[in-house]
Amino acid sequence: MTQRVLTGITTTGTLHLGNYVGAIRPAIAASREAGVESFFFMADYHALIKCDEPERINRSRLEIAAVWLAAGLDTSRVTFYRQSDIPEIPELTWLLTCITSKGQMNRAHAYKAAVDANVAAGEDPDAGITMGLYSYPILMAADILIFNAHRVPVGKDQVQHIEMARDVAQRFNHQFGKGEEFFVLPEANVEEDVALLPGLDGRKMSKSYDNSIPLFEGGSKGLKEAIARIVTDSRLPGEPKEPEGQALVTIYDAFATPQQRADFRAALRAGLAWGEAKQQLFELIEAEIAPMRARYDALMAHPERIEEILQQGAEKARAIAGPLLARAREAVGLRRFNAVAAPVVDTAKAAKAALPVFKQYREADGQFYFKLVSAEGQVLLQSAAFAGGRDAGQWVARLKREGAAALAEAPVQRGEGVDEAAVHAALLALQAADAA
Amino acid sequence: MTQRVLTGITTTGTLHLGNYVGAIRPAIAASREAGVESFFFMADYHALIKCDEPERINRSRLEIAAVWLAAGLDTSRVTFYRQSDIPEIPELTWLLTCITSKGQMNRAHAYKAAVDANVAAGEDPDAGITMGLYSYPILMAADILIFNAHRVPVGKDQVQHIEMARDVAQRFNHQFGKGEEFFVLPEANVEEDVALLPGLDGRKMSKSYDNSIPLFEGGSKGLKEAIARIVTDSRLPGEPKEPEGQALVTIYDAFATPQQRADFRAALRAGLAWGEAKQQLFELIEAEIAPMRARYDALMAHPERIEEILQQGAEKARAIAGPLLARAREAVGLRRFNAVAAPVVDTAKAAKAALPVFKQYREADGQFYFKLVSAEGQVLLQSAAFAGGRDAGQWVARLKREGAAALAEAPVQRGEGVDEAAVHAALLALQAADAA
Repeated sequence: MTQRVLTGITTTGTLHLGNYVGAIRPAIAASREAGVESFFFMADYHALIKCDEPERINRSRLEIAAVWLAAGLDTSRVTFYRQSDIPEIPELTWLLTCITSKGQMNRAHAYKAAVDANVAAGEDPDAGITMGLYSYPILMAADILIFNAHRVPVGKDQVQHIEMARDVAQRFNHQFGKGEEFFVLPEANVEEDVALLPGLDGRKMSKSYDNSIPLFEGGSKGLKEAIARIVTDSRLPGEPKEPEGQALVTIYDAFATPQQRADFRAALRAGLAWGEAKQQLFELIEAEIAPMRARYDALMAHPERIEEILQQGAEKARAIAGPLLARAREAVGLRRFNAVAAPVVDTAKAAKAALPVFKQYREADGQFYFKLVSAEGQVLLQSAAFAGGRDAGQWVARLKREGAAALAEAPVQRGEGVDEAAVHAALLALQAADAA
Repeated sequence: MTQRVLTGITTTGTLHLGNYVGAIRPAIAASREAGVESFFFMADYHALIKCDEPERINRSRLEIAAVWLAAGLDTSRVTFYRQSDIPEIPELTWLLTCITSKGQMNRAHAYKAAVDANVAAGEDPDAGITMGLYSYPILMAADILIFNAHRVPVGKDQVQHIEMARDVAQRFNHQFGKGEEFFVLPEANVEEDVALLPGLDGRKMSKSYDNSIPLFEGGSKGLKEAIARIVTDSRLPGEPKEPEGQALVTIYDAFATPQQRADFRAALRAGLAWGEAKQQLFELIEAEIAPMRARYDALMAHPERIEEILQQGAEKARAIAGPLLARAREAVGLRRFNAVAAPVVDTAKAAKAALPVFKQYREADGQFYFKLVSAEGQVLLQSAAFAGGRDAGQWVARLKREGAAALAEAPVQRGEGVDEAAVHAALLALQAADAA
């Protein structure tokens, strides 16, 4: 059976080479596996949790979409969309909110960490904590369940969220599933051996350490300059160098074939100068990145093309999310009111007996008239005089057909003490009975 | 200026005469005031907070819609809709969730009452409390703000929720409004002198006291039987009776003209028998209720007509909610990616320089060929041989135009070591550049 794999993409900040090696490249490779149906979405509703910079959120979404497309995400194969283009997600979020226990949210790591920090600082435990931060595991559950995804590749810190999504799915299945498995119970795919690229200083590459190599930013020149700043030991050209443990070598490995890796190590041991090694590293990375960078630049020059791709993705996604949400609404009781198959006899009889009625008649003056009379005999509407009976009949037919909408034009006036609403309701009742 | 007044209708349970006198009748009367644009909605997303009985929720929504229509709600004048037909509401709920502080929810009365009850029972403070109960003030804020309602008629217990809606509106205006008042700050209309109908035993009429007079349930007979059970004192026919303080008289007042009230009191003081008084009360109520009951029965026999009315209401409501949500999304940064007005020159040049290119040529064999070559000179696609140059040219044009979609049919194969994604991306880049 095809496995649905769902990957959320954070839409804040700018991506670096470590994101490419650790996340983008393997995710795109995995999406090409047989038997896998991949969903990639830009988690922009989540980005709003720290939503004080609209320009930044918007710009970042655009750049990140362009990066994934430029890196080779094949949108004819995968479903690639912006979370905020799928209104079924916030709606399912509310349905799930109603069956999520508050105690579970109290135990969420991100929230607990924020509380701990507040307590340590002597603040109110909830100081500065928004409901967005507190309740986003429910949004995340909706992200996953709305596509009945089987697997969600995540880091260890996210495993708890997947467990919460399983929990709420189980609760829904139990409460509303009538024995069938309404929602698939998703599983976390924890990638233990994620390739963590070292940064310039050898620590994990990270924006917060200011040690990252840009992915596309600054172009070829920027890449070269960053590589030049990778920290090495101080051995001179010609001196043998120990490759293992060098950040430069680890980064090289991430882009090299096994043969290239062996050759590079041998050259370093034979005394290759660090400057020359850096040039080789630059060329290796540039060979893989340059075509992507060109595509990235071409895409960034045409945001409307990216928009079009994302709209197509949203359409694909909603073709799945829409019917699933409709079933969920049905299950919890948010249904359309349908015609009753066999109206209960008493009710129908009572209704019929109690219906208002149009009466047509001719007066002694030889003119034709009609009136609308309630079941209780009260005159609701009285017509003007007509020269012919057909004219009167046509107005009756039109009032029956169009109801209150025809009132403004009809040559009628309300009976004494009869208000507009009573007339509207009477016409409505007639229309309703007529539709039987 | 027209004032928008928004009224939420609870969709659980069945309505009694007290609901009619205390809520429905005055609300419908208020909706007829000049200068007022009324919104009435069935709060069925709220009903889900205690959502373990789908059938009951669904049935109750239908009955309550029929009651309001039968009681004379004029849908050509007001906007009458089901909350769950407006997907803009849960989406706005999420946007507001991101700027609502958790501390504020901690102070909500309904939540605090539930915590107090747990603590008193020696339970965990949050035992049995769902996120629906905890966070519904945010949903309620979205209900109000999505229509920029000015006034919300509420009971005293709901005033805090309107204040929360004001708060979150203020925060949004401050953070994203750029100086303009994005959301109207709603005001609570507390009706101090709501007509509280006494029940059969003289206490407030309430389901939980089992002292209520049904509105339509049981028909005319049910009404008469309930009235017969109103508790009076034990004075005999002919004995003078003190009308003030009698539940029966208070109920009579709710349906009578000033003249009728005076006459009724005089008759009781002159010795009118309780049995006769009850008959008069029945006739008075029945005169007002019977036509509504008939309309109610007619409507309940045709749920599909009610559905149609609600769908028309949803359309009217979404014509307001849709554009407002679109502006809110724009404000927080969830924007469409639009064509850049003037592409930054450097980027455009870089993109152009780096574009892949189709090359057409003729071989020594006299046949025509084309290939797609990357900016770096790598052959991405190689065509088969064509007898004529025009055939080759037409395939190139089609690949440029349709991109990857044309690949399956095109007589081409990928260059050595070139993967599918690289070809897709190259075609995408060409399409993007072409759209410039």
